[in-house]
Amino acid sequence: MALFLVFGYQLVGLHAQSNPKSDADAFYIREIYNVALTKGKSYPWLEYLCNRIGARLSGTPQAASAVEYTRQMLDTMGLDSVWLQPCMVPHWNRGEKEIVRITHSKMGSFDLKALALGNSEGTGPNGLAAEVIEVKRLDELESLGRERLAGKIVFFNRPMDPTQLNTFAAYGGAVDQRGLGASRASKYGALAVLVRSMTTRLDDVPHTGSSTYEPGVTPIPALGISTNDAELLSRLLKEEPVRVYIRNTSHMMGMKPSHNVIGEIRGSEKPEEIILIGGHLDSWDVGTGAHDDGAGCVQAMDVLQVLKRLNYRPKRTIRCVLFMNEENGLKGGQAYAEVSNRKKEFHLAAIESDRGGFTPRGFTCESENRAFDKKYKQIMEWSPLLEAYGLSFKRGGSGADIGPLRSQKGVLFGFEPDSQRYFDYHHTAIDTFETVNKRELELGTAAMTALVYLLDKFGLE
Amino acid sequence: MALFLVFGYQLVGLHAQSNPKSDADAFYIREIYNVALTKGKSYPWLEYLCNRIGARLSGTPQAASAVEYTRQMLDTMGLDSVWLQPCMVPHWNRGEKEIVRITHSKMGSFDLKALALGNSEGTGPNGLAAEVIEVKRLDELESLGRERLAGKIVFFNRPMDPTQLNTFAAYGGAVDQRGLGASRASKYGALAVLVRSMTTRLDDVPHTGSSTYEPGVTPIPALGISTNDAELLSRLLKEEPVRVYIRNTSHMMGMKPSHNVIGEIRGSEKPEEIILIGGHLDSWDVGTGAHDDGAGCVQAMDVLQVLKRLNYRPKRTIRCVLFMNEENGLKGGQAYAEVSNRKKEFHLAAIESDRGGFTPRGFTCESENRAFDKKYKQIMEWSPLLEAYGLSFKRGGSGADIGPLRSQKGVLFGFEPDSQRYFDYHHTAIDTFETVNKRELELGTAAMTALVYLLDKFGLE
Repeated sequence: MALFLVFGYQLVGLHAQSNPKSDADAFYIREIYNVALTKGKSYPWLEYLCNRIGARLSGTPQAASAVEYTRQMLDTMGLDSVWLQPCMVPHWNRGEKEIVRITHSKMGSFDLKALALGNSEGTGPNGLAAEVIEVKRLDELESLGRERLAGKIVFFNRPMDPTQLNTFAAYGGAVDQRGLGASRASKYGALAVLVRSMTTRLDDVPHTGSSTYEPGVTPIPALGISTNDAELLSRLLKEEPVRVYIRNTSHMMGMKPSHNVIGEIRGSEKPEEIILIGGHLDSWDVGTGAHDDGAGCVQAMDVLQVLKRLNYRPKRTIRCVLFMNEENGLKGGQAYAEVSNRKKEFHLAAIESDRGGFTPRGFTCESENRAFDKKYKQIMEWSPLLEAYGLSFKRGGSGADIGPLRSQKGVLFGFEPDSQRYFDYHHTAIDTFETVNKRELELGTAAMTALVYLLDKFGLE
Repeated sequence: MALFLVFGYQLVGLHAQSNPKSDADAFYIREIYNVALTKGKSYPWLEYLCNRIGARLSGTPQAASAVEYTRQMLDTMGLDSVWLQPCMVPHWNRGEKEIVRITHSKMGSFDLKALALGNSEGTGPNGLAAEVIEVKRLDELESLGRERLAGKIVFFNRPMDPTQLNTFAAYGGAVDQRGLGASRASKYGALAVLVRSMTTRLDDVPHTGSSTYEPGVTPIPALGISTNDAELLSRLLKEEPVRVYIRNTSHMMGMKPSHNVIGEIRGSEKPEEIILIGGHLDSWDVGTGAHDDGAGCVQAMDVLQVLKRLNYRPKRTIRCVLFMNEENGLKGGQAYAEVSNRKKEFHLAAIESDRGGFTPRGFTCESENRAFDKKYKQIMEWSPLLEAYGLSFKRGGSGADIGPLRSQKGVLFGFEPDSQRYFDYHHTAIDTFETVNKRELELGTAAMTALVYLLDKFGLE
């Protein structure tokens, strides 16, 4: 694109829709966007979180630093209250650099790019070596049985489906291998598992992410390997048996005290109706958790900053919650809901941003409220106000941290940005500040602030 | 985002819309997406264009290499014809590394990050030094007059408006400074111009781009400076007079022979109705023209590759055109239209991709046809088939290269991807292959192929 063509784009906002009684709302939403795009603070906050604090795995000093930093930032805004909410979180440690080594093959001996999966137990200092058997699905384990699996390393190699338009659907279709692969293979006597990384890309970047041992299962080592290495290993296995040596020393270090970080503007008319915006403050220990979920945290904080800058006086209570331990325990989200239920609070709505700092496309929403159909219809009536900003609503899951609030029967929203790049970075060493675009991040703040404005002004009847 | 939540996303395609007679179309479009996302070739082609050939400024050996490479790639596809179409293009040369030096200020002497604007004439080997005067708009020149401007360096410093949702609208609102600043300032005796780079970012990356001298004007040097340097220079100017030394040796080297690259599948029923898809093969001399417009070229080529792989037999002629010299002359687009008019061809539709390889949002369309309202209505009726892929149609300018085809009174489409990141890279040294996401690029191919399919099947009545 070269010459100075003006493409005939129009200003959006004032004339975004035709209902005259909503012109004030269209105008206010335009103001929200103007402030978010010119006075937003999310980008420098994210830079600090990622580059000055770094990775924020639950239980680490960096996670504690992130709690203190975000508390201080919320404290600068003139909110009605800012506080820390205690919770106990599992502290997992990756240990020494993982070794996943093909010990002999027609290509000789060489190492694969690997990361231990979160919450998994390592091999210990001596490592282990065994033959590899490749499977594509958890249910293949049953047909192979103990006879074929005992003493082996099981290699889960079902790729994410690249034809899914929304990469989260592709993730949902493949992540059972990472979450449950070790637990299921252990039941058949496998010694360890290797799991193809959760991305549609073919590259050399291994992805971590949580793995769970079901009750009563012997914990076995579980490591993610890069997709290029998964392709290579699979090719070798088609030709000959392959033995792999694995050594890693990851282990659970017990529970540690930590906190959710909370700030709120109290409502002037219906303070008992809470509108929550949030993300999770913890990240994995590789990379710096820029998209997952530094972006969501700084966007949620910036919603309050934008509203304060606009001198907005909410009718309802607007509360920003930065949850701890989404990645490997969800203890922050659970603690928050427990306290909230004990206090008999009611969350009219909760919005979670945990799908990266990319260009906003809209919101998914869900509720256990029996009148949700009616509420959803009301929400859909706001669509014309948001269409000009490329936003739409649809039904769908919201977010892990706010999930425990379902029983309060409010409406839970998941902020939904463009999904194409998320799994390039997700749970990797390359989820860093540089991969976040300032405008895309700020547009997310604006989109969430606009929804908060509508929820606060109109409620959900 | 951590645990293995399935968000309830659904497969799109078969049930994308409710009109039963269009189920076949929905199915075919789903197939197009499947092939584009699993068998696309755009990404490796782009890698070759950017990393093996490099920058492709009109008239350079690299531009010739790109012509030959893309011709060879089209030749592998089993098309009905592949040919080169001659055109004469201006060959501009940047010359030696530019110097833009603040010679004395309270911060001492230091260099600004600068790039000569395309088609501009340099200072020559001795350079020039003068006092700087800052303006925000072209029309300020008239009020300042020759008295204030003669012998000065005029600094155009109006930023792109960050509150515009579509960054092309912000670009359209600022780029007159780059395109016409030198020409207009020259009329008042200015010695040279500096222009704030065309991006909403604040960074150290200068942007080039074309600059035009109007007839009869004395050509004066014109250079873009980074936005950070523009902010700094502006701050200094508020406090004291600032003198700048400029030295650059850019110059026009005359006209050189070059080519558009064309490949087509001939229509079986109405071969005289042409559906064109295209991008421009030339780039600026800095960076490697990945988004601008390597992406558009490889997408247009891949449309044909996807159709061939599907064994699609078009009723109408589907033609891929890779235009030369969009950036600093538009000679390829003009030559193409001249030949086409001479042959009395009719382009039923032309689609240009020249806004980067980002996630598709839809298409703008325009036409000089008096029955365009009716045709636009027909196009809008296809929307339900494309909604599931996040695509919509709107009226608006199409693309520079296909612009000269307007007089044929077909419908011209501009492929419209997400615009947020485009001006981070546009016309800079950082417009490189690594900034292009494979899926986003391939989704563009798929979107254009889907539109070609609909245009071919239904025509435009």
